[in-house]
Amino acid sequence: MLMAENIEIFGLEFIVRDYECDLQGVVNNANYQHYLEHARHEFLITKGINFVDLHNEGIDLILTRVEIDYKYPLRSRDRFIVKIDIEREGNARLVFIQEISRIPDNKLIVKARVTGVATRNGRPVPPGKIVEQLGLV
Amino acid sequence: MLMAENIEIFGLEFIVRDYECDLQGVVNNANYQHYLEHARHEFLITKGINFVDLHNEGIDLILTRVEIDYKYPLRSRDRFIVKIDIEREGNARLVFIQEISRIPDNKLIVKARVTGVATRNGRPVPPGKIVEQLGLV
Amino acid sequence: MLMAENIEIFGLEFIVRDYECDLQGVVNNANYQHYLEHARHEFLITKGINFVDLHNEGIDLILTRVEIDYKYPLRSRDRFIVKIDIEREGNARLVFIQEISRIPDNKLIVKARVTGVATRNGRPVPPGKIVEQLGLV
Amino acid sequence: MLMAENIEIFGLEFIVRDYECDLQGVVNNANYQHYLEHARHEFLITKGINFVDLHNEGIDLILTRVEIDYKYPLRSRDRFIVKIDIEREGNARLVFIQEISRIPDNKLIVKARVTGVATRNGRPVPPGKIVEQLGLV
Repeated sequence: MLMAENIEIFGLEFIVRDYECDLQGVVNNANYQHYLEHARHEFLITKGINFVDLHNEGIDLILTRVEIDYKYPLRSRDRFIVKIDIEREGNARLVFIQEISRIPDNKLIVKARVTGVATRNGRPVPPGKIVEQLGLV
Repeated sequence: MLMAENIEIFGLEFIVRDYECDLQGVVNNANYQHYLEHARHEFLITKGINFVDLHNEGIDLILTRVEIDYKYPLRSRDRFIVKIDIEREGNARLVFIQEISRIPDNKLIVKARVTGVATRNGRPVPPGKIVEQLGLV
Repeated sequence: MLMAENIEIFGLEFIVRDYECDLQGVVNNANYQHYLEHARHEFLITKGINFVDLHNEGIDLILTRVEIDYKYPLRSRDRFIVKIDIEREGNARLVFIQEISRIPDNKLIVKARVTGVATRNGRPVPPGKIVEQLGLV
Repeated sequence: MLMAENIEIFGLEFIVRDYECDLQGVVNNANYQHYLEHARHEFLITKGINFVDLHNEGIDLILTRVEIDYKYPLRSRDRFIVKIDIEREGNARLVFIQEISRIPDNKLIVKARVTGVATRNGRPVPPGKIVEQLGLV
């Protein structure tokens, strides 16, 4: 947890694992989505929302859109932090504003905007209780 | 290779492998980036451009931005095609317009816009010869 | 399908995708398990056994042991074939004898011996019907 | 670092990330190789041996054989530790004895025996200095 101007921003620390790097010697582009996803799921846990439990109850949190700007590559054993802020969009969509920066020099690595929705049997459901738990009411 | 209105569109066929699916029973979001990347690299090969050879010559094709719209999920053993069109953006950037659709019902799965640039030692280089090979002059 | 001395051996062809290679420029060791798994599941399909359908019926095919000998590495865009033979071991275990070889020079890449068992609620079940379908009775 | 009977055993802690689980709801078999590899590389770092630096100097640590016994599956967000002990085998081979156990109940998940060798241009080299650094002389 980081504090910035009284606004609580969630942050999760990682270290690059060698198998995440590809033959260019840097982290493969797809793996940043893995980092972003893991950070989102851990963020949700801190709000009492468990991605897997929801799935087992028939509610799936799914992504509808991802935008990622790759600013600078990560390399073997780089330490980094994934920060998350969250917004509501319209009635059904949640938007995660995510940023990856290297530790300790705070170099910006990735900026991402990830849009998700809650579904039951493949159809969007109003994310009522989830929105409450996230403090977005 | 598919032909549409005299414009040659590149397409590559895949089948979903079970390990690409996550605990929601559908292909994990990050894996679509793998499909998109593999299709781009195979497309470049048809134009005489080898991603790995370029890397070994000191030129890296890297992504600066990815936008992916997830329209419908793929499941175990679904067959699908990744189609690619390409555009030039400004002086240095190449934009890959990619689409994934299921086979044989042509259901739209993913739409993506992937922006890349050629770099040497981490700095953008005019993609001159590459642009020529891609027929974008 | 390949024929060798009247014995039907299942074979599935692949091409190495660049994202499967790591910073040593060769396929990462873990990815061979992905190749082996995908080939096994496709082999089972030819015998009328669907890994995912079984899971949905409450029966999970799980691995209890893997032995892999890495003989020679695969590189970007190498084509290869994964061959499978199968044996029964004791009452409950199935053993997949798998081999990966490069195409077209038939260079041996990997030899593997993969032991699996059918389970229901985490407990081994006699793989009766499966064994029949595999022709191991 | 754990101490057991005056013998220093290296241990590295992880948490299962949801994307590492497959449609059976458990960690996919191949991902245990990722965990084992990352733990080995971090262990080598504590001995002053950097896998990537060695690669850049022309020396590659590669695996020749992996044996993995899968005892019990890991699930979403399970915490676990990967422990490593090391032995020399013959002149050229290093053997990593690895064990994955769940935290905090110490449930045994995986036992592995991983054999590696140092190579230069694809040929084994006596791992002299490495063996010294590992305290195996």
